Amino acid sequence: MTPEPVQPALADAPAAAPAKNILDLNAFDPARAAGLEPAAAALVARRRRAFGPTSVLFYEEPVTVVRGEGVFLHGPNGERYLDAYNNVPSVGHCHDHVVAAVSRQLATLNTHTRYLYDNVYEYSERLLATMPAEVANIVFTCTGSESTDLALRIAESASGGTGFVVTEGAYHGNTAAATAISPSSLSDRPKPVHVEAVPAPDVYHRPAADLGARFAAEVTAAIARLEARGVKFAGLVVDGIFSSDGIYAEPAGFLAPAVAAARAAGGLYVADEVQPGFGRTGEAMWGFARHGLVPDLVVMGKPMGNGFPMGGVAARPEWLERFGARNGYFNTFGGNPVAAAAGLAVLDVIEGEALQANALATGRHLLAALRDLSGRDPRIGDVRGAGLYLGVELVADPETRAPDPALATRLINGLRRRGILIGAAGLSGNILKIRPPLCFGAEHADTLVAALGEALAEEG
Amino acid sequence: MTPEPVQPALADAPAAAPAKNILDLNAFDPARAAGLEPAAAALVARRRRAFGPTSVLFYEEPVTVVRGEGVFLHGPNGERYLDAYNNVPSVGHCHDHVVAAVSRQLATLNTHTRYLYDNVYEYSERLLATMPAEVANIVFTCTGSESTDLALRIAESASGGTGFVVTEGAYHGNTAAATAISPSSLSDRPKPVHVEAVPAPDVYHRPAADLGARFAAEVTAAIARLEARGVKFAGLVVDGIFSSDGIYAEPAGFLAPAVAAARAAGGLYVADEVQPGFGRTGEAMWGFARHGLVPDLVVMGKPMGNGFPMGGVAARPEWLERFGARNGYFNTFGGNPVAAAAGLAVLDVIEGEALQANALATGRHLLAALRDLSGRDPRIGDVRGAGLYLGVELVADPETRAPDPALATRLINGLRRRGILIGAAGLSGNILKIRPPLCFGAEHADTLVAALGEALAEEG
Repeated sequence: MTPEPVQPALADAPAAAPAKNILDLNAFDPARAAGLEPAAAALVARRRRAFGPTSVLFYEEPVTVVRGEGVFLHGPNGERYLDAYNNVPSVGHCHDHVVAAVSRQLATLNTHTRYLYDNVYEYSERLLATMPAEVANIVFTCTGSESTDLALRIAESASGGTGFVVTEGAYHGNTAAATAISPSSLSDRPKPVHVEAVPAPDVYHRPAADLGARFAAEVTAAIARLEARGVKFAGLVVDGIFSSDGIYAEPAGFLAPAVAAARAAGGLYVADEVQPGFGRTGEAMWGFARHGLVPDLVVMGKPMGNGFPMGGVAARPEWLERFGARNGYFNTFGGNPVAAAAGLAVLDVIEGEALQANALATGRHLLAALRDLSGRDPRIGDVRGAGLYLGVELVADPETRAPDPALATRLINGLRRRGILIGAAGLSGNILKIRPPLCFGAEHADTLVAALGEALAEEG
Repeated sequence: MTPEPVQPALADAPAAAPAKNILDLNAFDPARAAGLEPAAAALVARRRRAFGPTSVLFYEEPVTVVRGEGVFLHGPNGERYLDAYNNVPSVGHCHDHVVAAVSRQLATLNTHTRYLYDNVYEYSERLLATMPAEVANIVFTCTGSESTDLALRIAESASGGTGFVVTEGAYHGNTAAATAISPSSLSDRPKPVHVEAVPAPDVYHRPAADLGARFAAEVTAAIARLEARGVKFAGLVVDGIFSSDGIYAEPAGFLAPAVAAARAAGGLYVADEVQPGFGRTGEAMWGFARHGLVPDLVVMGKPMGNGFPMGGVAARPEWLERFGARNGYFNTFGGNPVAAAAGLAVLDVIEGEALQANALATGRHLLAALRDLSGRDPRIGDVRGAGLYLGVELVADPETRAPDPALATRLINGLRRRGILIGAAGLSGNILKIRPPLCFGAEHADTLVAALGEALAEEG
């Protein structure tokens, strides 16, 4: 296939505002602490003393939580929040089956993988069975960040290169190595010499006749920029739903030409499944599967244990073998029997409660309702996503499609006042990010859309 | 203070064998899989299929475990192992109080620190109260590796440098950045340009009139080597009991001149407390406290949650503030309410069961018994350590003090056959590493020493 030439941005689009650090989105402003009610102010003060000035809280008025159940979080004074934000408690807050399995295992055995115990192999087998046969091995870690960090090292040894291509708004984790390939974390600092970024696969601001071909051409150009400065290409690292870029899911399959281009250039395809994985997109268990792809390495984290800290890298055996020939890797907590119990219980619930099918059905219902709202309100420029990972892009002008991050912030806080939790995404922070627990039902979707309509109406 | 000149090694000491990768110590040889009993062989085969060839098991004959309680691990056929190896379940395997606290919290609320909830502030306050007043802030992570990785980034921003000094046998974690400062993980690969290593503070092989002065002089020389190649010094990173180097604890206080030298050169003192922390040395809650030091950054992990995956970096506020001015940091699972519950319960047990005092008392009893054994057996060249972290150095010749790693391996396996679990440490792998749960009593120590005597006798 001949890659389509890179298309220019819309001629009349305004110059992009400086990219926001992903941590600044929907952040509480400590200067407002004095205005909080006393109990919250006291917690904020204790937090400030213990955590220092850099730890980030959400919302103009932070949310205090004391209990979680299903799709709800509860506050200390009877407040109830519909959770349309948290993708970690993916099968539902404090799900009985997961809590019971983890509690039972905690009381029985918790050790490390240098001894033999069977539940971690059972879990590995069940998890790998959800992936293509070529992805036959797994290394357990504790977090998505550790998984990304390890995947980069494996990709380096597999390719003999050190250069990575990511998207301009990517976030892949918080270790030094993961931060280096996360432009959304770099703020005003330049990207390291071994990293090149491509624009998100965005057809709202940059229409494309063939998105797949354009994205592939941009990846190819980025690889060429790396090689031109003497950096050998190691891999393309992409989140299968481009979460922090602003949620770009359609059309399924568009990612395939870019992956082919990366492989043709000698690099690996590292699928970051921390966000789209474990059934969230509704259409597949994994984000890469929606695109018809077989990854070299799969990075997993957040929803894997429904909140129990665990992560993993699934790998084609040849890459792991090459890495292992010159490197050791041991993760003390990774793959411990409690993590395995949590992971098994999460798979039980995803299957037993048909949560992938629910994500598909509720996601379609929610997408349609949001598009209906969008048709009646020009401030909603675009509604997109897959399953229960949706983005609602807010614009100051439907013609120029200029981002309106201030409106996004006001709506997020307006929804919070109405007892609904969502977040923001995108380089400008103007995209509402909706990714609830996968047990979110149509009734919850309707509540969310009605409240968003009210919050928009409140804006005038 | 004028640093004492660096002393040469003992003139008649043999050339050191090539350093072993820390992961090769006491490793199972997969070629022996065919000789295992069928149930273990089946687990090894499943493990090999899922994990690939690089994951390391312990022992000539791997240990299968199904249950843990206090200082014991239990196998599937009634085997009982006295655990003198595992420092993660530091207050005892499956301790009731920790299991109950974690289970209760799992069923109530598990979310992240961008919302307000109080137990994480309570935990922060209690944990920081065990440290010097200057170390007043904390950032939570999920593992010791994530903590090291973050500490390196904070030290870089605080110092404006990138160079680190560590010990030759150091292990500080498994991320890319932590591996770079872990010579024990590098195998045959050269150290990165930003890393210099100094010999362990070893007076057994290299007697010193003033160990503190010599160690400081070696750190100063290492800093000079960094600066000579244009790398600005950022910090000295040391494990307060030099675990993977071979366990060097005495005399308490010897570390102080090196820390002063590091600070004089503009670097930070990063105290890796993953191993000595939480009371293990008996003499103090923290390894740095034994040396009378106030760290800039404290790296915590393994025993913090008795097996619940959690870690943290305690910091002087000024360094965290400087880091935060240009960097964000958020850790999804770090500081979640379940981790806080685990951490609080661990502190409860350390205090309620006086485990630090027990580590001191049992440690002294065990040290004396091991020294008694050593006096009767010239193959034991040295016995050392603090509290319940002891090293037993095995030598082929008491005069040359030549390491005998083969004997160490045979003894570790001989103890395993006798139902006792220990490990190995040191660049040559000839040092028995003893670091049981802190509820280890004198009777357990006696069992261990008697079995070690038998295993030595078996050797002839």
